[in-house]
Amino acid sequence: MSNLLVVGSMAIDSVKTPFGEREEAVGGSATYFSISASFFARIRLVAVIGRDFPEDTLNFLGERGVDLAGIERSHGETFRWKGEYGFDLNTARTLETRLNVFQAFRPQVPPAYQESEYLFLANIDPELQASVLDQVKSPRFTACDTMNFWIEGKRQELLETLRRVDAVVINEAEARELAGESNIVRAARKVMAMGPKTVVIKRGEYGALLFQNDTIFSAPGLPLENIYDPTGAGDTFAGGLMGYLASTGDLSHAGFRRAVIYGSVMASFNVESFSYDRMRSLTAAEVHSRYGQFSDLAHFERL
Amino acid sequence: MSNLLVVGSMAIDSVKTPFGEREEAVGGSATYFSISASFFARIRLVAVIGRDFPEDTLNFLGERGVDLAGIERSHGETFRWKGEYGFDLNTARTLETRLNVFQAFRPQVPPAYQESEYLFLANIDPELQASVLDQVKSPRFTACDTMNFWIEGKRQELLETLRRVDAVVINEAEARELAGESNIVRAARKVMAMGPKTVVIKRGEYGALLFQNDTIFSAPGLPLENIYDPTGAGDTFAGGLMGYLASTGDLSHAGFRRAVIYGSVMASFNVESFSYDRMRSLTAAEVHSRYGQFSDLAHFERL
Repeated sequence: MSNLLVVGSMAIDSVKTPFGEREEAVGGSATYFSISASFFARIRLVAVIGRDFPEDTLNFLGERGVDLAGIERSHGETFRWKGEYGFDLNTARTLETRLNVFQAFRPQVPPAYQESEYLFLANIDPELQASVLDQVKSPRFTACDTMNFWIEGKRQELLETLRRVDAVVINEAEARELAGESNIVRAARKVMAMGPKTVVIKRGEYGALLFQNDTIFSAPGLPLENIYDPTGAGDTFAGGLMGYLASTGDLSHAGFRRAVIYGSVMASFNVESFSYDRMRSLTAAEVHSRYGQFSDLAHFERL
Repeated sequence: MSNLLVVGSMAIDSVKTPFGEREEAVGGSATYFSISASFFARIRLVAVIGRDFPEDTLNFLGERGVDLAGIERSHGETFRWKGEYGFDLNTARTLETRLNVFQAFRPQVPPAYQESEYLFLANIDPELQASVLDQVKSPRFTACDTMNFWIEGKRQELLETLRRVDAVVINEAEARELAGESNIVRAARKVMAMGPKTVVIKRGEYGALLFQNDTIFSAPGLPLENIYDPTGAGDTFAGGLMGYLASTGDLSHAGFRRAVIYGSVMASFNVESFSYDRMRSLTAAEVHSRYGQFSDLAHFERL
């Protein structure tokens, strides 16, 4: 099994949805990604936490086999995010962001991680993403996420990072904004022209699109009766996708299609509860069974 | 091949989208439905037109084998609709509606049509839909569409119609409003409890969901580089779906899945130009080839 390195945020979130709220729960892109990917591969995690980050989560990550040697423990408070969702669970409204220890975060990839074969750059400053690319020697496959804040504020730096990665995993609105193009097919082609040969576009409850060469794969979203909190769905999706690729080493187009489904599987679990609660009790058997549900959901006969 | 009867509107539309505009082009739910369904089955059309309705369209319908004996020619002007779309092509803004001859429309099903095996009640007053159900003797399969106007203004009458049909084909916002439930799975179950054993939910570019018993099928939307006008997409979808069912007589669940894909195929063509322009030159070979594109788009390996 290959090693998968992720660099991103570990956070404490306060989230309100139409179905409840949760104060000071663990979140952060790297946290969600790592837990999700740990169902498939050996994960190495580079992030920064403050002295108030729950030991309980670190223990859980350790139990799931996540290598924590790359976590920097700083003296301040952990990054905090506060947000809410309306009935349209696809869009979060940020109420407050306190960077805290994240402000001075300069990712240091430990020597033991520099030979990682798979690398995911979660949504952080594209300059930091580039610095991580500088530190990892010859990864087999690299992917990044980003957000509107960087698309608007650090476009040149982001374009530099995009030139250097194999794949980008972003949501629909981000793809449109990045490309300056409302049509999603043309937006994806423009993003591919920026560098990444693989573009994955997340569409929340509507699933995801995978673009490679001239081929498009449309993955369904699993219609769920109970969705409590979409926070972390995108990172959980990326974790399943990258974790599956790293576990099989199969970078064929068919392999990517399966990886997108595994990403969707993991995201579908994560939204069923607040924080990463659902993934706490999740089993490998449940993961594989839900892949089967996706097959049943999307299958129709060729003619 | 079975006979498929449709009752709905024939209209003259003026439409503006971000990609162009068209004044006084032929539209109407029954028009779009009939043209689309004519690729699969023998269509019988009950509607009303004014003296200004283009002969050209009637000729085209005739060439496509649509039986026009049920079209009532009235002395006033044809029903007119004027609307526009923003970049979110999923929602139309109605600028003007002039009912004209449609105001007094009381659908009369000709005796020769009363034994039709398949029946589609396009979006008209639910009381008129019920009157059509009264006139058709023992249809094998019936489906209806509706809209927010009737959900809000004639709820009891609509519920009566829903009790009497086998299927309902509505869009996502309509399903939510009809059920009073934002979660789409629970909304669909509530609509099923109103009568229809089959619920098809149209999601525009995101595809469609089919609900039957405890099974859900998710059909993808075909990502298109050029979308000019979504007007009539829902009716064209319903036409492909019902036309395919009528052509095969296969009402199995697998048959419904294929029918939903054929509906999606037809809608994907229709949005490629204004009015029904794309369907004018469309061939059966193109229809079947695009079904193959949907297969390629959605396929992933079971494990």
